[in-house]
Amino acid sequence: MSNEKVLVFGHKNPDTDTICSALVYADLKSKLGMNVEPVRLGEINEETAFALNFFQAEKPRLVENVSNEVEQVALVDHNEFQQSVSDIESVKIIEVIDHHRIANFQTKEPLNFRVEPVGCTTTILHKMYRENNVEITKQMAGLMVSAIISDSLLFKSPTCTDEDVEAAKSLAEIAEINLDEYGLDMLKAGTKLENRSAKQIISIDSKEFPMGEKLVEVAQVNTVDVAEVLARKEEIAEEINATIESKNLEVFVLAITDILEGDSTILTYGNGVAKVEEAFDVAVTENTALLKGVVSRKKQIIPALTKAIG
Amino acid sequence: MSNEKVLVFGHKNPDTDTICSALVYADLKSKLGMNVEPVRLGEINEETAFALNFFQAEKPRLVENVSNEVEQVALVDHNEFQQSVSDIESVKIIEVIDHHRIANFQTKEPLNFRVEPVGCTTTILHKMYRENNVEITKQMAGLMVSAIISDSLLFKSPTCTDEDVEAAKSLAEIAEINLDEYGLDMLKAGTKLENRSAKQIISIDSKEFPMGEKLVEVAQVNTVDVAEVLARKEEIAEEINATIESKNLEVFVLAITDILEGDSTILTYGNGVAKVEEAFDVAVTENTALLKGVVSRKKQIIPALTKAIG
Ligand SMILES: [Mn+2]
Ligand SMILES: [Mn+2]
Repeated sequence: MSNEKVLVFGHKNPDTDTICSALVYADLKSKLGMNVEPVRLGEINEETAFALNFFQAEKPRLVENVSNEVEQVALVDHNEFQQSVSDIESVKIIEVIDHHRIANFQTKEPLNFRVEPVGCTTTILHKMYRENNVEITKQMAGLMVSAIISDSLLFKSPTCTDEDVEAAKSLAEIAEINLDEYGLDMLKAGTKLENRSAKQIISIDSKEFPMGEKLVEVAQVNTVDVAEVLARKEEIAEEINATIESKNLEVFVLAITDILEGDSTILTYGNGVAKVEEAFDVAVTENTALLKGVVSRKKQIIPALTKAIG
Repeated sequence: MSNEKVLVFGHKNPDTDTICSALVYADLKSKLGMNVEPVRLGEINEETAFALNFFQAEKPRLVENVSNEVEQVALVDHNEFQQSVSDIESVKIIEVIDHHRIANFQTKEPLNFRVEPVGCTTTILHKMYRENNVEITKQMAGLMVSAIISDSLLFKSPTCTDEDVEAAKSLAEIAEINLDEYGLDMLKAGTKLENRSAKQIISIDSKEFPMGEKLVEVAQVNTVDVAEVLARKEEIAEEINATIESKNLEVFVLAITDILEGDSTILTYGNGVAKVEEAFDVAVTENTALLKGVVSRKKQIIPALTKAIG
């Protein structure tokens, strides 16, 4: 391993897994002798802030570009270039640790690329500590279990695998937390939407996906009160339509996910709304529909949309 | 793991690593409970035939398509779709084990994707036996070490890492072979070109690479007698030019690799010959040039061409 500095980061619009994975990857790799700094590509959300605060971890440094400071980077929790830093094609990617579909990724040379179909990136990082016989501190255990709780919605998501549950249980012990109690507190911390502008609501956790020739954006917010979000439909619609126009999107889907019920209500706009109806076999009435049992963008929303549109 | 049948295969124009990796993957995964059959996408070359014969292994079944018989596949030793089976986009890829650059690969859903920057796919498979505590038979050890010898040109290639050398030494013991003696015999078996047509010579080990908007094809033959190949330049040129026309290639490069010296002499044709000169900083005279110390298509030829053309 060279001593040349490596920056590690997750995707734009960082979620808890992305932030914690960057911190945890840096901890593990530093202990293995790599010169690595975790950074982030956007603002921390309130759920992540709760987790970092609980385990007294500092948030990674915010960057806009990376090629101005390093030649090598590692990616966690994403691989698609349009979800990455804007100058990703100007640096060498030495490693990717991820649990998403693979697309829009390309390198000139071989690299370490590890994607597994588990519910959370830190579940893979947890294995890597074991494979390398590196001890897991209480703080790192806390960050890893927080990421698993977040990505799996406390094990409710269909993306959640046995491996994630086992990792979370083992990590909760090291972190000295009660999984259910800490988990609900952390998830609820991320659902405070009343102080958010409509623009913030549609961009807290939003990702773009090229499908065929079209571009689709899917945003997600977690809540314990769907009605509170729907009450602001008009101002949210205005922001969504402005986004569609500026990015030339085929369709925009905002999934308002009820973390207690395990359902999502969607707000959807754009030329592709009929394709959304086709994808989920529902009628979209006044731009809204209830998707029963749908909580996972990655496992439920994106595959269905890709099939209908891509 | 489901009991639904999975086909595993390497790239078109199979080399020794591709064939052995499919056989070895099937052995390992069968022992772990997967219902998996190894298949191949093309004719076996003479080097591979030597290795299979030596270790009394049957060659995998030849297929042209896969979606007519299975819904799920695993890929070894490649990931780019244009190097894979023609109907790759009609099946679900559940796993990829590879050591090449990543490009032109895309899935709808997460999968197991393991790429490491080592010299040979079987070096990764060797690790997977250990990680899963599965015993390695003499036959499987023989196939794995043959693949490492082939991809590393008996450790001469810059793609060869310490991990490959260690794996090869350990596997040679289990396979009960002398590495140098068996290795040279196997490599020489692959260099018998006198009975080959010009068309065969340029397609024994040939791959296409999209670079930017252009398509480039790079073929490679190993030999202990470069002059013997160059003596047939005229008929080889005819075949290369016919290929350029039919596939609309920007440039075709045939690397004639001297396995004893560790150099390659290239024959190159097409509009992009000036780019080849630029890529390797050499003068191409009468469509030929000597590339000192160049033996690896993946690590030396493709990155240089991609930089000049892509
Ligand atoms: Mn994640
Ligand atoms: Mn190979």
